Amino acid sequence: MTGKKILLPEPTLRRLPWYLSYVEMLNSQGQSFVSSTQISHALSVDSSQIAKDLSFLNLKGKTGIGYNVKDLVDTLNSFLSFKRRHNAVIVGVGSLGTALIHDSGLSNYGLHIVAGFDRDFERVGEYICGVPVFHTDEMRYRRAQFEASIGILTVPADQAQTSADYMVASGIKAIWNFTPYRIKVREGIVISNISIYAHLALIYNRLEAAPTKEEKKK
Amino acid sequence: MTGKKILLPEPTLRRLPWYLSYVEMLNSQGQSFVSSTQISHALSVDSSQIAKDLSFLNLKGKTGIGYNVKDLVDTLNSFLSFKRRHNAVIVGVGSLGTALIHDSGLSNYGLHIVAGFDRDFERVGEYICGVPVFHTDEMRYRRAQFEASIGILTVPADQAQTSADYMVASGIKAIWNFTPYRIKVREGIVISNISIYAHLALIYNRLEAAPTKEEKKK
Repeated sequence: MTGKKILLPEPTLRRLPWYLSYVEMLNSQGQSFVSSTQISHALSVDSSQIAKDLSFLNLKGKTGIGYNVKDLVDTLNSFLSFKRRHNAVIVGVGSLGTALIHDSGLSNYGLHIVAGFDRDFERVGEYICGVPVFHTDEMRYRRAQFEASIGILTVPADQAQTSADYMVASGIKAIWNFTPYRIKVREGIVISNISIYAHLALIYNRLEAAPTKEEKKK
Repeated sequence: MTGKKILLPEPTLRRLPWYLSYVEMLNSQGQSFVSSTQISHALSVDSSQIAKDLSFLNLKGKTGIGYNVKDLVDTLNSFLSFKRRHNAVIVGVGSLGTALIHDSGLSNYGLHIVAGFDRDFERVGEYICGVPVFHTDEMRYRRAQFEASIGILTVPADQAQTSADYMVASGIKAIWNFTPYRIKVREGIVISNISIYAHLALIYNRLEAAPTKEEKKK
């Protein structure tokens, strides 16, 4: 990367991976150019919104031709930082933490889980898919050793705040929170709540409260 | 459950699991009553918003006392449907799909993964944590057999739309989309996009574009 990144609006950051995923598919199919109208139809995003989002990346389509697909793939990957290496540690090597370590696909998006931490001595010393598990007390020293800025929080909800405090004290700069607990951290620390359980709540509610056409006919 | 569920607004559905997680902690600590002000301080949500969200559940706090913690836990669990069993199938038993099957924690929130589907014959016939893997062609028959309404989509992005179409044709009513691809489905089918990669994009951008105080001093 050359120069400092610009701070992109959150809705734009949410849409850019959709564009990338779509243009990567076009690229693998051998398509050279794509218009914002084509992207708009495929992803149901307004084409002026697409043009605006891409202008943050200094990408402008040519009238009548559109965007160069390969340029789009490269620029989106570069802006989204998916091709750079980002070291992360997992805090809480239970069921979900172990599952995330197993998901090698995250490394395709730049996320490399380099160590796990757990306060259960039974787990300490284990290797999961080659990733070592240390005791939580070693976090400060090990985090620096592994040069990890990102901490993935997968402890039980009632330990979420204490663990988050400890992560920040150990030098973690961003917490990807997989717990349903709303952790609080000091200004300057990045928090991203993935809210798995909110997704489940939404799916269950929509399934149970909104009858499908078939059910309406019964 | 008695009677039909009410369709809750999406922001409310996003907040209710936070409340549940918090009051479950209070309950385990032996606290009997909680005010919306206390929840508000803990979760940084406006207390009038909390009262409004909980009024959807016909829960009203008593002046000077607040909400009964046990009632809150039970009612939230009931409304969020976390204590009911919801059968789900996984479509795409790669790294992420396998990881999700390993995460037994989802069943604490009512999600039971009962079968996996993959078009790779090498995987068919496998059992992952007791969950059988079938060929994608068997989806229609097996889905009905397992009474699964929810499909978890974990295929590569370029297969996302075809797989989603096939899931809907097989009788899936809700798709939890873990791919970065924006799938389209007919009206009446529930879609929930978890956007793992948008989370990573946000974390990377905030880490790289927004210097922390320490970095500013350098």
